[in-house]
Amino acid sequence: MHVLIIGAAGMVGRKLAERLTRDRTLAGQTVEAMTLVDVVAPEAPASFTGKVSLQTLDLSNPGSAETLIASRPDVLFHLAAIVSGEAELDFEKGYLINLDGTRHLFEAIRLAHLADGYRPRLVFTSSIAVVGAPLPYPIPDDFHTTPLTSYGTQKAICELLLSDYSRKGYFDGIGIRLPTVCIRPGRPNKAASGFFSNILREPLVGQEAILPVNEDVRHWHASPRSAVGFLIHGATIDLEEVGPRRNLSMPGLSATVGEQIEALRRVAGEKAVKLIRREPDETIMRICAGWAPGFEATRARALGFTAENSFDEIIRVHIEDELGGSL
Amino acid sequence: MHVLIIGAAGMVGRKLAERLTRDRTLAGQTVEAMTLVDVVAPEAPASFTGKVSLQTLDLSNPGSAETLIASRPDVLFHLAAIVSGEAELDFEKGYLINLDGTRHLFEAIRLAHLADGYRPRLVFTSSIAVVGAPLPYPIPDDFHTTPLTSYGTQKAICELLLSDYSRKGYFDGIGIRLPTVCIRPGRPNKAASGFFSNILREPLVGQEAILPVNEDVRHWHASPRSAVGFLIHGATIDLEEVGPRRNLSMPGLSATVGEQIEALRRVAGEKAVKLIRREPDETIMRICAGWAPGFEATRARALGFTAENSFDEIIRVHIEDELGGSL
Repeated sequence: MHVLIIGAAGMVGRKLAERLTRDRTLAGQTVEAMTLVDVVAPEAPASFTGKVSLQTLDLSNPGSAETLIASRPDVLFHLAAIVSGEAELDFEKGYLINLDGTRHLFEAIRLAHLADGYRPRLVFTSSIAVVGAPLPYPIPDDFHTTPLTSYGTQKAICELLLSDYSRKGYFDGIGIRLPTVCIRPGRPNKAASGFFSNILREPLVGQEAILPVNEDVRHWHASPRSAVGFLIHGATIDLEEVGPRRNLSMPGLSATVGEQIEALRRVAGEKAVKLIRREPDETIMRICAGWAPGFEATRARALGFTAENSFDEIIRVHIEDELGGSL
Repeated sequence: MHVLIIGAAGMVGRKLAERLTRDRTLAGQTVEAMTLVDVVAPEAPASFTGKVSLQTLDLSNPGSAETLIASRPDVLFHLAAIVSGEAELDFEKGYLINLDGTRHLFEAIRLAHLADGYRPRLVFTSSIAVVGAPLPYPIPDDFHTTPLTSYGTQKAICELLLSDYSRKGYFDGIGIRLPTVCIRPGRPNKAASGFFSNILREPLVGQEAILPVNEDVRHWHASPRSAVGFLIHGATIDLEEVGPRRNLSMPGLSATVGEQIEALRRVAGEKAVKLIRREPDETIMRICAGWAPGFEATRARALGFTAENSFDEIIRVHIEDELGGSL
């Protein structure tokens, strides 16, 4: 089996390639080859013994998608996107990368399908940003997509395209609406949502972190490990069973910031909690107020998608996967 | 005020131009000029005393949208689309006209906005085809859009674009999800939904009509007069009040085919009803089963959009507007 990962240099893309390297199988078949693609040079997973092809290209450039499809990968993971903040600041770039890039990919597959019957599995990462406030809690699976960002709009449009191309049989697609990934490894960044990870990740290694919102802010989380698990499961399950509604809100954990902090206290003690410094930020508070507090995810759970059940578990996953298993 | 109608040669476009000719005002201002555009030559309304410009062009051609925007119309009605059946048969043409054509228009307005602050009112006709079975009855305003046709997908995508461009302030847009327009004037056509109009319009003038489905089929209707009324109201109301959710399911009348026939009996007698010939058609029955039975339309009603309350009324509107007021 040949697996293509577009957006392979990103955090989830790297972890997905590592997981496939460990598993060496996907959907019951041996992964013989991986093609890893991004706009910056992706790294080959160190211990993968199959064939690896690394490509640096931008899906929004004419011909890029055709290049990727020429080798007819069996499973495609399309994770590439510019993030919410950048898509909001640069309207044209957001539509170019997040909408047109995806459409180029879908079109290249459609034309290959018409040429020789090619019909790969396509796993697309969507986002909870497809919904916009005011939101009920929990948000049911049949709630409408009224995004309040250009990023969310672009993801919602790609979801619609994915369903239509799948319905027409051009590919077998599934859209995975990822919760906010927490604890995100790496350094603190300027994303408005960064604090959800910062306030846990930094204190776990003795560093101070800033909390810009109140403790009653409720949001929807899953670990990087779960995010990769969603993608693998999405590549594996029978999509006939899923039917024409191909975009699924993933399960996750709905928790307040206060609940996150309590979990940190239980796992790492009062010393860690004391490293969280409160610096209220009106802008971030206002942005947060529009975010999803949590989803029912009834369909995804019934289809076997699973996530963490407590923030203690999310923290332990981080300690295992990023900190060598202990504090 | 300068009004632009794109899709002016279609049934609703013609009736809209006639209504503006009669009213001579829109949103409290005098309509000084109308530009009527379609891919086939539109006709000028006979008695309009303002300036009329007729243009034959295809919005999907590069430069067409810029041509239309050059004169900076104050209100744009974008009704142009290829219909559901054609968009389903010709995938590329559907996306080219219904998605790319609309996006060209939105982009031309955005660039004009960036150039000189132009920010027109834009009224876009969407469709109940944005939802897809299985459907609750009535369908709430916050029900998700999971279309089962490429046409519905294209309309749902344009709705998302319309909201995002409006949110960014490039234009002041509103999406009008039209019910099935009934009684559609003209000759019977091959649209799968044609029978809803045929079984009333033809018997009213002594002609036979074919009913291909059972009498318990429930669907969602509004008269051509109401459809035009929605567009006028959409061009008039304060969109600040509407907020960021700019696409509204219009009010309508939910009725079964049996209820349609009972109304025909009340208005035109048993003689008319006897002209309906039952010829069950499995294909049309299957297509119908996926159609919307009716919407709550709570938001649209609260905003002052109104439609007929009985099929008797829908039939009387047809007699007044198409048959000179009497049978």
